[in-house]
Amino acid sequence: MPVLGAALAELGQQRVFDGLTIGFRLHLEPKTAVLVKGLLAGGARVVAMGNEGTTQFGTAEALAEWGCEVLDRPDDGKGAVLAHLSRIAEAGPNLVLDNGAELIEACVSAGRSPKGATEETTSGAFRLRAGLAGVVGFPVIVINDSPLKAIVENKHGVGESVVDAIVRATNMSLHKKRVVVFGYGWCGRGIALYARRRGADVTAVEPDPVKALEAAMDGFDVAGPDGAVRTADVGITATGRGRVVGYELIETLPDGALLANAGHTEAEIDVIRLEREAPGELVAPSLYAHELPGGRTVFLLAKGRIVNLAAAGGTGNPIEAMDLGLTLQARSLAALAASGGDFRPGPQPVPQKINDQTATAMLESMGQTPA
Amino acid sequence: MPVLGAALAELGQQRVFDGLTIGFRLHLEPKTAVLVKGLLAGGARVVAMGNEGTTQFGTAEALAEWGCEVLDRPDDGKGAVLAHLSRIAEAGPNLVLDNGAELIEACVSAGRSPKGATEETTSGAFRLRAGLAGVVGFPVIVINDSPLKAIVENKHGVGESVVDAIVRATNMSLHKKRVVVFGYGWCGRGIALYARRRGADVTAVEPDPVKALEAAMDGFDVAGPDGAVRTADVGITATGRGRVVGYELIETLPDGALLANAGHTEAEIDVIRLEREAPGELVAPSLYAHELPGGRTVFLLAKGRIVNLAAAGGTGNPIEAMDLGLTLQARSLAALAASGGDFRPGPQPVPQKINDQTATAMLESMGQTPA
Amino acid sequence: MPVLGAALAELGQQRVFDGLTIGFRLHLEPKTAVLVKGLLAGGARVVAMGNEGTTQFGTAEALAEWGCEVLDRPDDGKGAVLAHLSRIAEAGPNLVLDNGAELIEACVSAGRSPKGATEETTSGAFRLRAGLAGVVGFPVIVINDSPLKAIVENKHGVGESVVDAIVRATNMSLHKKRVVVFGYGWCGRGIALYARRRGADVTAVEPDPVKALEAAMDGFDVAGPDGAVRTADVGITATGRGRVVGYELIETLPDGALLANAGHTEAEIDVIRLEREAPGELVAPSLYAHELPGGRTVFLLAKGRIVNLAAAGGTGNPIEAMDLGLTLQARSLAALAASGGDFRPGPQPVPQKINDQTATAMLESMGQTPA
Amino acid sequence: MPVLGAALAELGQQRVFDGLTIGFRLHLEPKTAVLVKGLLAGGARVVAMGNEGTTQFGTAEALAEWGCEVLDRPDDGKGAVLAHLSRIAEAGPNLVLDNGAELIEACVSAGRSPKGATEETTSGAFRLRAGLAGVVGFPVIVINDSPLKAIVENKHGVGESVVDAIVRATNMSLHKKRVVVFGYGWCGRGIALYARRRGADVTAVEPDPVKALEAAMDGFDVAGPDGAVRTADVGITATGRGRVVGYELIETLPDGALLANAGHTEAEIDVIRLEREAPGELVAPSLYAHELPGGRTVFLLAKGRIVNLAAAGGTGNPIEAMDLGLTLQARSLAALAASGGDFRPGPQPVPQKINDQTATAMLESMGQTPA
Repeated sequence: MPVLGAALAELGQQRVFDGLTIGFRLHLEPKTAVLVKGLLAGGARVVAMGNEGTTQFGTAEALAEWGCEVLDRPDDGKGAVLAHLSRIAEAGPNLVLDNGAELIEACVSAGRSPKGATEETTSGAFRLRAGLAGVVGFPVIVINDSPLKAIVENKHGVGESVVDAIVRATNMSLHKKRVVVFGYGWCGRGIALYARRRGADVTAVEPDPVKALEAAMDGFDVAGPDGAVRTADVGITATGRGRVVGYELIETLPDGALLANAGHTEAEIDVIRLEREAPGELVAPSLYAHELPGGRTVFLLAKGRIVNLAAAGGTGNPIEAMDLGLTLQARSLAALAASGGDFRPGPQPVPQKINDQTATAMLESMGQTPA
Repeated sequence: MPVLGAALAELGQQRVFDGLTIGFRLHLEPKTAVLVKGLLAGGARVVAMGNEGTTQFGTAEALAEWGCEVLDRPDDGKGAVLAHLSRIAEAGPNLVLDNGAELIEACVSAGRSPKGATEETTSGAFRLRAGLAGVVGFPVIVINDSPLKAIVENKHGVGESVVDAIVRATNMSLHKKRVVVFGYGWCGRGIALYARRRGADVTAVEPDPVKALEAAMDGFDVAGPDGAVRTADVGITATGRGRVVGYELIETLPDGALLANAGHTEAEIDVIRLEREAPGELVAPSLYAHELPGGRTVFLLAKGRIVNLAAAGGTGNPIEAMDLGLTLQARSLAALAASGGDFRPGPQPVPQKINDQTATAMLESMGQTPA
Repeated sequence: MPVLGAALAELGQQRVFDGLTIGFRLHLEPKTAVLVKGLLAGGARVVAMGNEGTTQFGTAEALAEWGCEVLDRPDDGKGAVLAHLSRIAEAGPNLVLDNGAELIEACVSAGRSPKGATEETTSGAFRLRAGLAGVVGFPVIVINDSPLKAIVENKHGVGESVVDAIVRATNMSLHKKRVVVFGYGWCGRGIALYARRRGADVTAVEPDPVKALEAAMDGFDVAGPDGAVRTADVGITATGRGRVVGYELIETLPDGALLANAGHTEAEIDVIRLEREAPGELVAPSLYAHELPGGRTVFLLAKGRIVNLAAAGGTGNPIEAMDLGLTLQARSLAALAASGGDFRPGPQPVPQKINDQTATAMLESMGQTPA
Repeated sequence: MPVLGAALAELGQQRVFDGLTIGFRLHLEPKTAVLVKGLLAGGARVVAMGNEGTTQFGTAEALAEWGCEVLDRPDDGKGAVLAHLSRIAEAGPNLVLDNGAELIEACVSAGRSPKGATEETTSGAFRLRAGLAGVVGFPVIVINDSPLKAIVENKHGVGESVVDAIVRATNMSLHKKRVVVFGYGWCGRGIALYARRRGADVTAVEPDPVKALEAAMDGFDVAGPDGAVRTADVGITATGRGRVVGYELIETLPDGALLANAGHTEAEIDVIRLEREAPGELVAPSLYAHELPGGRTVFLLAKGRIVNLAAAGGTGNPIEAMDLGLTLQARSLAALAASGGDFRPGPQPVPQKINDQTATAMLESMGQTPA
């Protein structure tokens, strides 16, 4: 991760984190550990916990050795998680790095007001703008809103890895298969693009007519869900909304069709009702066959969980996308640490200067020489 | 133009233009004449003039026959143009369709306040937001700001026709030629895409690092202007800014390189100084050879004027892009006519409902069936 | 034409043509004139004539000035052409460059036996292998059989310029239009590729199942002629065979569909019967509307003649394809001149060494550095 | 495998295998077992063995249950293999399905002359045309020479799965990485294509100038091995020849470069000398880091063995390619069974009729409707 490495080296020399306490909540695995190590090297005290069930034991041990206080353990229950959140909040962090807005909420509940926070996810940002609107008195930079992430991670990282995961799990060729992509946002665009690059004929289902026209100008077919589903060899959801593919739609799929979900929530496909009407049988790693009452069989990958992470052998986004995201985190935390009131309270986008710096560094790591 | 035809038929039935006077200023040629005819059929009185020198005689005659008052003649001078603008303003139009904001300005000067206006161009919108800011007391819908135009006209229409015009004028194959595109906005994106589709290796020169990163993720090389120009077989400007390729850059082009401009202003390439230092010699229709003092020769297409229109055989955007743009005009005028104060004064984007309706109609004309 | 220039310079220095008489029959226009000039500079006497009606007056004058004997004039009738052929044959040429095998036939008739000949076209080669089989006692190198021409000229040159010619003549966008390509040989492959690159959905009609499977693996749809024609917005023939699109098929085209032919013979579309049943009306340069008895209108470009040459503004193949073809001619003539019986009599392919040399030179002209 | 299924059903009805003994040597795994089952159902007696170490226990058991005589066991040594080959030969098979020509050789040695044989591999065909030339008195159809396999398996199957395997093993994005492909045959073409589709800049190294020109016209860079290797982020061999990337070339790779081999023989990269000079250290599944004496590190995937099969998680070609190959086997065996002397002795291509039938069936399985 050359971009993150260079950013951490630069920030470390500037000692922007010197003496600060950082509350850190993110999957604790080797890549995020690089960020923690850099914060520690920059002079910070880091109190950390992972997301439920994502803390890797070796990583936690290594972090502890480097001086990070790691609170959680792989087998923590819901109660323990809440206790860890409180404990970090009680530590009175100067900066918070959050993932889902729960640590930010814990700080607010504990009457703590860090100088600023970063929030990794769009769903966390949604909570900050809905249930937590107006109650967060400190700035929260929403990393996922950066246009860099839309391009590098959502379009190319997710798009490519979702299609890879489907091919890997099925050993299927997509040539002249009909792939129906639900949602033509950044992820859907990428999925459609990479499915076509593997020879698929792609239909986009997108209720926004302007985006749908863009799909058509990009060369894809456009159809409503009912028409599209009837032709699908493969259906992939990437809408960020729930029950996009309800059971009634599933019933109209051709025999042998495959469903997968690329959204963060597994509710895009009505897996619950599908399981009830036609319980799945594991026929290959991560691949379930559901024999519908009418006789047709449909396949579901990874039980409808986010397929590029949850399917067997899924490796998530490429390392370059992690490099980018963690750099945005490091630079945003540094900007909050160094700020003198130039951030307003509440959720807000990554400052343009940080987007520009990070984009330039990423271009250079790709061998490109911008102006 | 099926999308425009359907829109005009629908609006005509609704009689939204019944009894209204419409001041109309747009190139008067067969395609825009279809719009005028529809407005007349919808019950409007239309007082029209073209842009300088663009009124086609046959079109003007036909319009007059249909009942349109056409003021200008192909050989009008600057003074006559101003007189026509005043005369339309004095007619007290209820609605204004403008192209460059001069007719809107004339209405303001004459103390007339139409119910609303549309402005075709981005440069007209710029004037409305700069010199005319605050003085226009009625709503002006800026057609060119519609995301539909960015996609259909700028990216695909301009991108494809600019590359076509260059190939046509030179009978050159672009295979493994190095094409340098200045500007990675909507037009630049399209030019880069269609140059690659003809086999070129493309470098994007783009000062905004986020857009530059998008260019790299789209697969193009990214370089600063100095480095890029040294490698260029073909250089194309599409920035909307002036003197992007100054004479100092031109001097560093390889022998035999070709320059063309895709922006609306011919000042993107410093043609004036180039002509002074190395006067061009016409070597093929629209194609000028400039022998530089150092001995190298560079070629310039269409004297730096917008190449897809100005180069020999240039046909501008495809008819589908015109169909879209004129439909946005017709529907925006109708919305203004029917409005009861739901538009604020001053320049503003095309209402989302109109974008959605038009996108849906365009999708249907492409054989696609959105939801 | 850098590749031809370098080849002629090299051959000129070797004086391979010194003192030889070359009978030359090819379109006499500025590009072929470069080849004649090089042969003259290499020491040859050249007696030349063009194809019927293709000799350009200025070119003939320039050639005469350089010392070439040009026999024909732009307005020669069939009788004059035969006289010229005889006269060249009677001159007892040492080498013959032919285009259609008529000059070769004239030599045979006159009892002349040059050391060798080249034949530009596949149809000439066909005559040599059919009607003239066994009667030609000297070697004839068939230029068009070179794999280089298949790739550079047929696939990319023809493919790109045919699609260009259609777009140019119609000012139509191909986005999401259905383009049906008849024939998936080298030309058809290129047409399908470049139509897709302009946004078209492409169907290939190809009776050979192995080629049809290749089309499908290349991502195109495959259908029989009856099914394909019913869906066509644009139909393009590129089969080299006659009556591929008969009148019965034309009758099933959708209203508004366009037909064009990319094959050398205009008989691929049954234009004769179409004209009889539904005479064409010129609606734009090269574009004819045929109103079928049933009420539908179909459009025909360039009366079914080879569209990239015959349509208005058609410029034929790019200059790079000419550079390649004329270099193969020059090197093949030189090899025949220098040969000591290493060529067998009758039609035969371009020697591999010449293909290799020319491919290497062309790669270098494209800035590539093969091993 | 719908194409194989339909072929076996058709052949079974025709009873072409009735009463025949078939000697069968091919990897015994679930997909090849489908072919064996079909032969049994068609009335044949099948005596089978796998390749060394490739027989899967469950498959062997299932085959035995269906009535197939399976000779080998997963842990057989070289001696046992030879014994099995002899035993099959001694059974006097009417037809032989071979993979490497060893069973064919055993038949010749035993003085047995089946009615005909099929040979799966190109290397087996090479042995038949070299060491065994003239001694095989019965026809041998070489499956791998079919143009269908070149397209479906080599270009698309191998090309796609090789690039997949590299991305999977490294979790690397190929965007703007420089991928150097050695060999622009069918496999190399596919690798270059799929690497580009993942965003890579691709250089082809190909000594044949005509193929190299095709690579350039396909849009790839072309360079000699020395120049190419210096720029490589990833180098992939696909030449079918030995020591294409010798140690001297490896020494000039940039720091951090990755090597992988897509050819059948692992000798394309000089792994032996690389291991001696810079022994590899396993840094991730299948991924070895070699620290060169000069200080640079290069990575080697799967020890230079065929990467789409040998790398961790490698799944080989997609199932559609197997479906094709096994169908060619089934139909070729049937044609030999039914033949009355219409095949000449020795190695020969798949009959065109079988290619055509299989291509048609495959097109139909892809939803295409050829003429």
